[in-house]
Amino acid sequence: MARDQFARLCDIELVSVSPGQASARMNLDQKHLNGIGTIQGGAIFTLADFAFAAASNSHGGLAVGINVTINYFKAVTTGVLHAEAKEVSLHHKLATYLVEVRDGPGDLVALFQGTVYRKSSGK
Amino acid sequence: MARDQFARLCDIELVSVSPGQASARMNLDQKHLNGIGTIQGGAIFTLADFAFAAASNSHGGLAVGINVTINYFKAVTTGVLHAEAKEVSLHHKLATYLVEVRDGPGDLVALFQGTVYRKSSGK
Amino acid sequence: MARDQFARLCDIELVSVSPGQASARMNLDQKHLNGIGTIQGGAIFTLADFAFAAASNSHGGLAVGINVTINYFKAVTTGVLHAEAKEVSLHHKLATYLVEVRDGPGDLVALFQGTVYRKSSGK
Amino acid sequence: MARDQFARLCDIELVSVSPGQASARMNLDQKHLNGIGTIQGGAIFTLADFAFAAASNSHGGLAVGINVTINYFKAVTTGVLHAEAKEVSLHHKLATYLVEVRDGPGDLVALFQGTVYRKSSGK
Repeated sequence: MARDQFARLCDIELVSVSPGQASARMNLDQKHLNGIGTIQGGAIFTLADFAFAAASNSHGGLAVGINVTINYFKAVTTGVLHAEAKEVSLHHKLATYLVEVRDGPGDLVALFQGTVYRKSSGK
Repeated sequence: MARDQFARLCDIELVSVSPGQASARMNLDQKHLNGIGTIQGGAIFTLADFAFAAASNSHGGLAVGINVTINYFKAVTTGVLHAEAKEVSLHHKLATYLVEVRDGPGDLVALFQGTVYRKSSGK
Repeated sequence: MARDQFARLCDIELVSVSPGQASARMNLDQKHLNGIGTIQGGAIFTLADFAFAAASNSHGGLAVGINVTINYFKAVTTGVLHAEAKEVSLHHKLATYLVEVRDGPGDLVALFQGTVYRKSSGK
Repeated sequence: MARDQFARLCDIELVSVSPGQASARMNLDQKHLNGIGTIQGGAIFTLADFAFAAASNSHGGLAVGINVTINYFKAVTTGVLHAEAKEVSLHHKLATYLVEVRDGPGDLVALFQGTVYRKSSGK
């Protein structure tokens, strides 16, 4: 995860990772804003996706994202965003994760449901 | 769209926009890479999301994304990505778009299906 | 919910409903099977959708589903399925729900994430 | 597909199938109605899912649905619904399909995007 250059560009940091879960953080800045002055959906997605990638690769082996659904609930403009990814299902070749993105006060900003294909399972 | 700072950070350019559709482009660079050396899912999402925002705001008024599903089909590492958004359904308060993301050779890299809530309809 | 004829055709029963949540049950039978002898994805979806409709209409007013994502984790063939819907986000015009579908032993069979448009809010 | 008992319960018929695509039809009836007198989302989903299953199994081998997103655009009450599934991406283990559901006049009722895991590829 440390070699992820796009995450670095977005100022995303990995906070913790353990088998089947991960958390990440993004300090919000002007550069994350869209044309109407709120945090761009792509920035929120990238934060969630980073936690998803960390959680899905926490078992060793290599897992790649195949699809994701994200729902947005609250526009944010400043502060920090936290993403918490947890494993919902783990099979030999497929696994699914839910990622909650919350702002500083703890309000739910987005909910992300992603599935990976496990190219190798790390065993 | 020109004031979208996050899109600028990602080197995303709007190519064209007309009622119900839009296209955008992203020249790929090292900064878009993830930890395994392929273009980060968040970067591909952001490109598609930018075309989606342009298409959904092409009628005037203000439309905000409420949810999106994205499927990834092909890992890319270099070159250029093109996103083409087209309107699938337009109602008074809701509208839905499909966005195809293709690489230089024209292969489908991702398919994005997004829905907006139209806060104002521009009429 | 009691007037839902398609739910009745599928042998789906509402178990409970309270503000923002609902649960439903489906006793599995031969009629729910697909061509390879497992419960049809449409039957599992319909059960989850019924709990989603009950939860999203639990505040009074009228809410209609606009989109849904469902992930399937386990093939089932017999017994009973339980769906539990809970509210993730509630706004004036939009609300989102997660529905877990579990089999008799309690294993997660499917996860359903659905959004409604609230035509009237019941106030 | 002919052995799908749940599809039969729903009065769904396969119209055509060829490599990577399939179409199906459902004659609407009282039994497909929900509590507010429109066709139940689960019935529309099941029709689309049936076309998706036919298209994804059209190459031989066995493909099982792993996840689906469906968007609803128009409430329908009577007549007939047609579902057309077409392949968007085909890989060794994964494939993705778009299914359009239209009513008699040809209006788009729902758009369904589904992914299968190909347990065996038929070669």
